[in-house]
Amino acid sequence: MPRLAIHRLSMSHPGDLSALETLLAAGKLRAADIRAVIGKTEGNGGLNDFTRGFFTQSLMLLLSAHTGDPPDALAARVPCVLSGGTEGALSPHYLVFSAAEHAAPGQRGLAIGTAFSQPTPAREIGRESQVRAVAQAVRAAMAQAGIARTQDVALVQVKAPCAQAPDAAARSTDPRVLMALSRAAAAFGVGVALGDIAPDRATESAMLRDLTLFSNRASISSGIEVTANEVVVFGTAEGWAPGIAAGVAPMRDLLDLAGVQAALAAAPGEVLGVIAKGEPDRSGAIRGHRHTMLGDTDLDPQRHLRGALGAIVAAVAGDGRVFVSGGAEHQGPPGGGLVCVFARSP
Amino acid sequence: MPRLAIHRLSMSHPGDLSALETLLAAGKLRAADIRAVIGKTEGNGGLNDFTRGFFTQSLMLLLSAHTGDPPDALAARVPCVLSGGTEGALSPHYLVFSAAEHAAPGQRGLAIGTAFSQPTPAREIGRESQVRAVAQAVRAAMAQAGIARTQDVALVQVKAPCAQAPDAAARSTDPRVLMALSRAAAAFGVGVALGDIAPDRATESAMLRDLTLFSNRASISSGIEVTANEVVVFGTAEGWAPGIAAGVAPMRDLLDLAGVQAALAAAPGEVLGVIAKGEPDRSGAIRGHRHTMLGDTDLDPQRHLRGALGAIVAAVAGDGRVFVSGGAEHQGPPGGGLVCVFARSP
Amino acid sequence: MPRLAIHRLSMSHPGDLSALETLLAAGKLRAADIRAVIGKTEGNGGLNDFTRGFFTQSLMLLLSAHTGDPPDALAARVPCVLSGGTEGALSPHYLVFSAAEHAAPGQRGLAIGTAFSQPTPAREIGRESQVRAVAQAVRAAMAQAGIARTQDVALVQVKAPCAQAPDAAARSTDPRVLMALSRAAAAFGVGVALGDIAPDRATESAMLRDLTLFSNRASISSGIEVTANEVVVFGTAEGWAPGIAAGVAPMRDLLDLAGVQAALAAAPGEVLGVIAKGEPDRSGAIRGHRHTMLGDTDLDPQRHLRGALGAIVAAVAGDGRVFVSGGAEHQGPPGGGLVCVFARSP
Amino acid sequence: MPRLAIHRLSMSHPGDLSALETLLAAGKLRAADIRAVIGKTEGNGGLNDFTRGFFTQSLMLLLSAHTGDPPDALAARVPCVLSGGTEGALSPHYLVFSAAEHAAPGQRGLAIGTAFSQPTPAREIGRESQVRAVAQAVRAAMAQAGIARTQDVALVQVKAPCAQAPDAAARSTDPRVLMALSRAAAAFGVGVALGDIAPDRATESAMLRDLTLFSNRASISSGIEVTANEVVVFGTAEGWAPGIAAGVAPMRDLLDLAGVQAALAAAPGEVLGVIAKGEPDRSGAIRGHRHTMLGDTDLDPQRHLRGALGAIVAAVAGDGRVFVSGGAEHQGPPGGGLVCVFARSP
Repeated sequence: MPRLAIHRLSMSHPGDLSALETLLAAGKLRAADIRAVIGKTEGNGGLNDFTRGFFTQSLMLLLSAHTGDPPDALAARVPCVLSGGTEGALSPHYLVFSAAEHAAPGQRGLAIGTAFSQPTPAREIGRESQVRAVAQAVRAAMAQAGIARTQDVALVQVKAPCAQAPDAAARSTDPRVLMALSRAAAAFGVGVALGDIAPDRATESAMLRDLTLFSNRASISSGIEVTANEVVVFGTAEGWAPGIAAGVAPMRDLLDLAGVQAALAAAPGEVLGVIAKGEPDRSGAIRGHRHTMLGDTDLDPQRHLRGALGAIVAAVAGDGRVFVSGGAEHQGPPGGGLVCVFARSP
Repeated sequence: MPRLAIHRLSMSHPGDLSALETLLAAGKLRAADIRAVIGKTEGNGGLNDFTRGFFTQSLMLLLSAHTGDPPDALAARVPCVLSGGTEGALSPHYLVFSAAEHAAPGQRGLAIGTAFSQPTPAREIGRESQVRAVAQAVRAAMAQAGIARTQDVALVQVKAPCAQAPDAAARSTDPRVLMALSRAAAAFGVGVALGDIAPDRATESAMLRDLTLFSNRASISSGIEVTANEVVVFGTAEGWAPGIAAGVAPMRDLLDLAGVQAALAAAPGEVLGVIAKGEPDRSGAIRGHRHTMLGDTDLDPQRHLRGALGAIVAAVAGDGRVFVSGGAEHQGPPGGGLVCVFARSP
Repeated sequence: MPRLAIHRLSMSHPGDLSALETLLAAGKLRAADIRAVIGKTEGNGGLNDFTRGFFTQSLMLLLSAHTGDPPDALAARVPCVLSGGTEGALSPHYLVFSAAEHAAPGQRGLAIGTAFSQPTPAREIGRESQVRAVAQAVRAAMAQAGIARTQDVALVQVKAPCAQAPDAAARSTDPRVLMALSRAAAAFGVGVALGDIAPDRATESAMLRDLTLFSNRASISSGIEVTANEVVVFGTAEGWAPGIAAGVAPMRDLLDLAGVQAALAAAPGEVLGVIAKGEPDRSGAIRGHRHTMLGDTDLDPQRHLRGALGAIVAAVAGDGRVFVSGGAEHQGPPGGGLVCVFARSP
Repeated sequence: MPRLAIHRLSMSHPGDLSALETLLAAGKLRAADIRAVIGKTEGNGGLNDFTRGFFTQSLMLLLSAHTGDPPDALAARVPCVLSGGTEGALSPHYLVFSAAEHAAPGQRGLAIGTAFSQPTPAREIGRESQVRAVAQAVRAAMAQAGIARTQDVALVQVKAPCAQAPDAAARSTDPRVLMALSRAAAAFGVGVALGDIAPDRATESAMLRDLTLFSNRASISSGIEVTANEVVVFGTAEGWAPGIAAGVAPMRDLLDLAGVQAALAAAPGEVLGVIAKGEPDRSGAIRGHRHTMLGDTDLDPQRHLRGALGAIVAAVAGDGRVFVSGGAEHQGPPGGGLVCVFARSP
């Protein structure tokens, strides 16, 4: 039976995998056991953020050196979900999720499962075909992990594709819009797979429009450095060693301190990793007071958002190593989001 | 005897004083009673932030229309301390401090006093002469308010001058450096006046270098739109009506949630205004983890800082209308800052 | 008969009208003769650029002091067309266009005419009603100037309104999109009035889509600081003193140096002012080579564009005081633009 | 005898070396013949620009696959001089310089020579030891190329090291200042080696201060992705095949169109590559008119500069593939720079 391990590692720049290299060299972790990497690089998080591609290339080179598998094969098997942008209090870091064999039958613990959809070309992004592809990948990842019931899923992290220069066959030729549509479709896919969103409502026309549709267990990033939907599912399953818990709580708005505290309370013990999603409230106001995130020509809304949300979560956690990703379409209530805490059970 | 009143008002853009105009027109506030304005406009907070000048011009025009005094005379009498930058969760707003006559002798309450130094030309910025000028203005403002003892001072807010294109006679020809020196000298002036910094240590060479020297009751902004040091002192004094309290607490670092909570706890009741200062830790790390605020070519360190600090304070206060100003040199421990909460006593 | 005069004045910040004040005080210019102001302030040129509002307020206060008319009345009569953003080689400045009486009958020279449309609320922006309103204002301005024929028009400069937070009745709730629609509708209005665009093709659905429709004599800015379409027409008319020429030439793409040189050649003599429009080529490439203006999360496309176009025009003119405005939808061929040079005839 | 070849290649992102891969695969270029790469990636050109490291890693991996040498050994032998920032009209691209054997003795042509200094740690940056190290590397590169006389050198391109977080032993703990000092020291080194700057004047105290000291044949970039000074020298030498010319001309200020035209005129024929250096005039004005490049909190001075200079050079060349690098300290007159054109002789 497998046992999940989480290593939270720092980096001095987006191509710096030395912390992981040290672990591998010391035999504290086997490269072949690595199931997924979720990390925060110090780019701008937008279309022209190449820190994600740089990190991914460096990671796969390192894993290739240790496993003998070619980098491309590894990239097609190990999801590497990166979000650029460490504004404010945030600190560049990455979480390495591994699953090693462990002799302790009959137990139940936090499990990880991964899956890749078929490549999603630009013309399929934001379409119902992407919704179905993501839903299917979520189910595949659950099956791989042995998570039997949708209610046992704690969080689904997806890296969804985008296109730098979408052509006329795409739903939008504006790559920023396409990026949002990709997140929306992936969130719908997660919601459908988990039963949080009714399949017949997860339509193209509802994407980015019907904000009552959301899954508070979906966390989606989008970027041009992936071509398929890469899915990582966390949840409780038979046959996994106990010892690590995942606490998830919704945030009803950006200032929902209690939501952050609830996620931490739900996973007591040594914190191993924190994931948060949020978005600038589209109404232009938070609790009745105007914010300026959406109309700033010099500072991207997502950079505004990550700096604010990241600082709140980091202040509660007492640690800047928080994975914060903007663009929370259909991943929580409008203007809100979610927080997921991984902790070693006390 | 006077009674301090605080109005926290929103604006739809930096030239929008309509909320104050409504109060004045309705007779809820007399223009002549206004003693100081402290506000947060939605610029970038840097050298080329003209939202502060726009707001000040609009404010003085409005007060002129209501008092009959020329705008220039009002600007030389009513401190208007603005900080640009409402990153993240922050909301553009301004605090109007007024003192109306009030018949209730023998009481003790929160007092306000104001003073302007002589104009400080570029060559005097960051010099010991500026330290002395600010210290003298602090004492004058305390005297005006009737604050007898330095320990009765809660907070000193200063708007210190800068120069857009300092010449060779200035301590630095780099206006950004001069801006920091102006904050440092003003903080030294406050510290000397309050006894928080020994006068003989408040030297030019110690500015921006000896970070053990600070006053946790100093909050300094700097900008090119003022030519003198404008000082506003808050503290407890005889002869002022009770009813408003100021709670001040230091933040030991950017993630010091407890510090923010302490300031709010120190001034229970309906919050009327919040002021916070902080700075990116110059060591490049917070609690041992690297931050990226100081090396971002695209996003100014102060914009990073305000977005993060503002969000933390706003989350605790439950309201984005927080005055957050970066550049906390000598206004708290390195990498830390302060929070001041004004509240109507319950 | 009137004689057009153009003063090109510098400013040290967006509220600095001292150069104009000096001219007025010295009697070199009568405030009542000022017909329009076209200027370049040092903001970011986007939704949150308040340098335009600051300048306008300062200008109208100055004119009010000299004419006795209230600032609001002046703002409703004297078009003040500002474009924010002096990236790169550009220098903040403004052109003051005045028309004084001049006894020299029977001549023909460069004329100026101005007109304001009715206020255009957010829901009318980008609609055919705005097209008609602008076309009518162009005709009114031509009539005022005495410009008899559309072929005598050299340039129509329009400042078109936008909305900071458009509601659901607007064509787009994204204010950036609405800004572009406002420029498109205004360009259509100019094109229709001048016969450059067939009225039946100037439809809502063609805006921002049918890029074959354009007028190379239209130069449109949009901003939240105006509520009506403010129109300034330049052209040749009977009864105006000779002495100033306007040379206009299209730019077929951003690198069209010959186009810039042609505009300067068309108006030989001392240059009094230069106006240029352009846009990032939407194809993502210029002369077959990829540009990165449209996908930069940290630097707005219009800031990219103004820095590049401004430098080219300034290098040819040998002077950074060039009015450059991005967003050239329907104001020239896709990816191209126009240059207009005002010069004192030799 | 060798023959210099220059390939100007485009890339779709900073990790895209497919154009070079195609050439290598087709046998049109031998990987072992590649002597240097000079390229322009689409980052921000500052401390946190990781596009340079991403490109370098990708390049060395590709060359390793074709030569069998390890990437590290290649990186220590083949200078890869990258400048981030393709603002405005600029297009991401790279120049591949190769030298293949060629049987045509007794001729004279454009030669290339390269050299690496010893690693320069942070504490040596901006010191006279760096000046000497660069001067020695320039001489070594000249010797390698067989360039006999300093007057035969057309251009020296240097990539000089910087440090992300310099400690107290460094000349400045501000990495931005250290970056400028590294450029200054490297320019001094080039100037000393070429006889353009007297050795006894190339002192630490003169760096960034005595702007009368410069070499108009030095083009220096600085970045944290290199640890040694990487030097590429171009000049005329015996034993090299003719056919490629380098035209170099100074720019006396940013608007010096004639300077750009002179460089193009000096190397007639098909343009193979263009290199330009410049800087924002520190006086704050160009030809007497204020510019705003140095005081913009939202847009870095070098991004301003590259957008403007790049557009001017691109407009004259008719092609956006121009290597433009800001930070021209001691590489030309204050506020000016240089342009170098490589062309196939007609």
